[in-house]
Amino acid sequence: MRIDIITVLPELLESPFNASILKRAIEKDLVEVHFHNLRDYTDNSYKQVDDYQYGGGAGMVLMIEPIDKCISSLQKERIYDEVIYMTPDGHTLNQRMANSLSLKENIIILCGHYKGVDQRVRDKFVTKEISIGDYVLSGGELGAAVLCDAVIRLIPGVLNDETSALTDTFQDNLLAPPVYTRPAEYKEMKVPDVLLTGNFAKIEKWREEQALARTQELRPDLLE
Amino acid sequence: MRIDIITVLPELLESPFNASILKRAIEKDLVEVHFHNLRDYTDNSYKQVDDYQYGGGAGMVLMIEPIDKCISSLQKERIYDEVIYMTPDGHTLNQRMANSLSLKENIIILCGHYKGVDQRVRDKFVTKEISIGDYVLSGGELGAAVLCDAVIRLIPGVLNDETSALTDTFQDNLLAPPVYTRPAEYKEMKVPDVLLTGNFAKIEKWREEQALARTQELRPDLLE
Repeated sequence: MRIDIITVLPELLESPFNASILKRAIEKDLVEVHFHNLRDYTDNSYKQVDDYQYGGGAGMVLMIEPIDKCISSLQKERIYDEVIYMTPDGHTLNQRMANSLSLKENIIILCGHYKGVDQRVRDKFVTKEISIGDYVLSGGELGAAVLCDAVIRLIPGVLNDETSALTDTFQDNLLAPPVYTRPAEYKEMKVPDVLLTGNFAKIEKWREEQALARTQELRPDLLE
Repeated sequence: MRIDIITVLPELLESPFNASILKRAIEKDLVEVHFHNLRDYTDNSYKQVDDYQYGGGAGMVLMIEPIDKCISSLQKERIYDEVIYMTPDGHTLNQRMANSLSLKENIIILCGHYKGVDQRVRDKFVTKEISIGDYVLSGGELGAAVLCDAVIRLIPGVLNDETSALTDTFQDNLLAPPVYTRPAEYKEMKVPDVLLTGNFAKIEKWREEQALARTQELRPDLLE
């Protein structure tokens, strides 16, 4: 899988892709991630990528021309499955969407910043608009990092133990059951007895009950 | 405002807090952000912070003792409004929650990693569990960065122009209207005429109509 991220702030993305699971996936050649600084696609000497919005109002808007140039130059090199724009009014990311994106070959992710991108970019170049949630961030960069993390960890071989992702919250529309580790007792707080029995059938049943109860209490909408 | 982030991967968080609006807010002393490496709160020589889960199954679990030590040492210094645990089965973050957190004074954010934290941590120390969306990430670090960005940009003085946040998507339960910037025509794609009229009453009316139409089409749930 290859992911090309277009941004005005590539430096913001450095550390998330240079740690933990994303770093390992890149080192194992299971995914290639490239950052493209939008300022490298400007003609003007100020490397200007944004301008005031037509009609007035607060906040700058990313201009269409450098984005067009950057996307076009990438599309000359290979075919992209999706050109994704990170925006709070896009389709809300969920685990199913992450699963489906993990099967793609080439993806472009365009990060908005300031007040967003010129609407013509969205009309003309973007194939999918994704939001990571109902809140506003300073830019699309953290959203892009979140999307990449959610997707890349699902690529076979990225996690050490593939069952680890399969038992995650949301994979079966249930929240995960509670987990415990040593010590069995800490300041009078004990691990539930059943987990110490070694009876795996009983443990499995307990976990299913806990997952269902937790989902019913906290997220009944997932069961509908 | 002061935010203390407890994590096993402080290096993952570096660049998001060292760029753009978060960096500016920290430099302006509008917010203090401190990272705490959980490994600094272990007694054992391996600096072990995680262990296998009781009852078997894939994925490591963060142990209660170092988390207890870290939170307790912070709470000896000052009173915290919230101890937040980032977890996919927490309350889903939305703009209203971000608004309300932006008014707090001191917050601890605990990042899960691997399979999560020992349930006793959640039962005993955590006052609020927050999810940034219905998908699973490798750890709570990106979630913490997202939460901090959503909250910190709302602190008065952080954004250059305060109206900029007030006209964002979600602040009034409406998606934002489309935005355009120069040039007025690009490869035969034109900016809507109304935005070029200079008639601000007309422009305002058009924006309201567009925001409502976009919300009705893409997110009718916000209007309910």
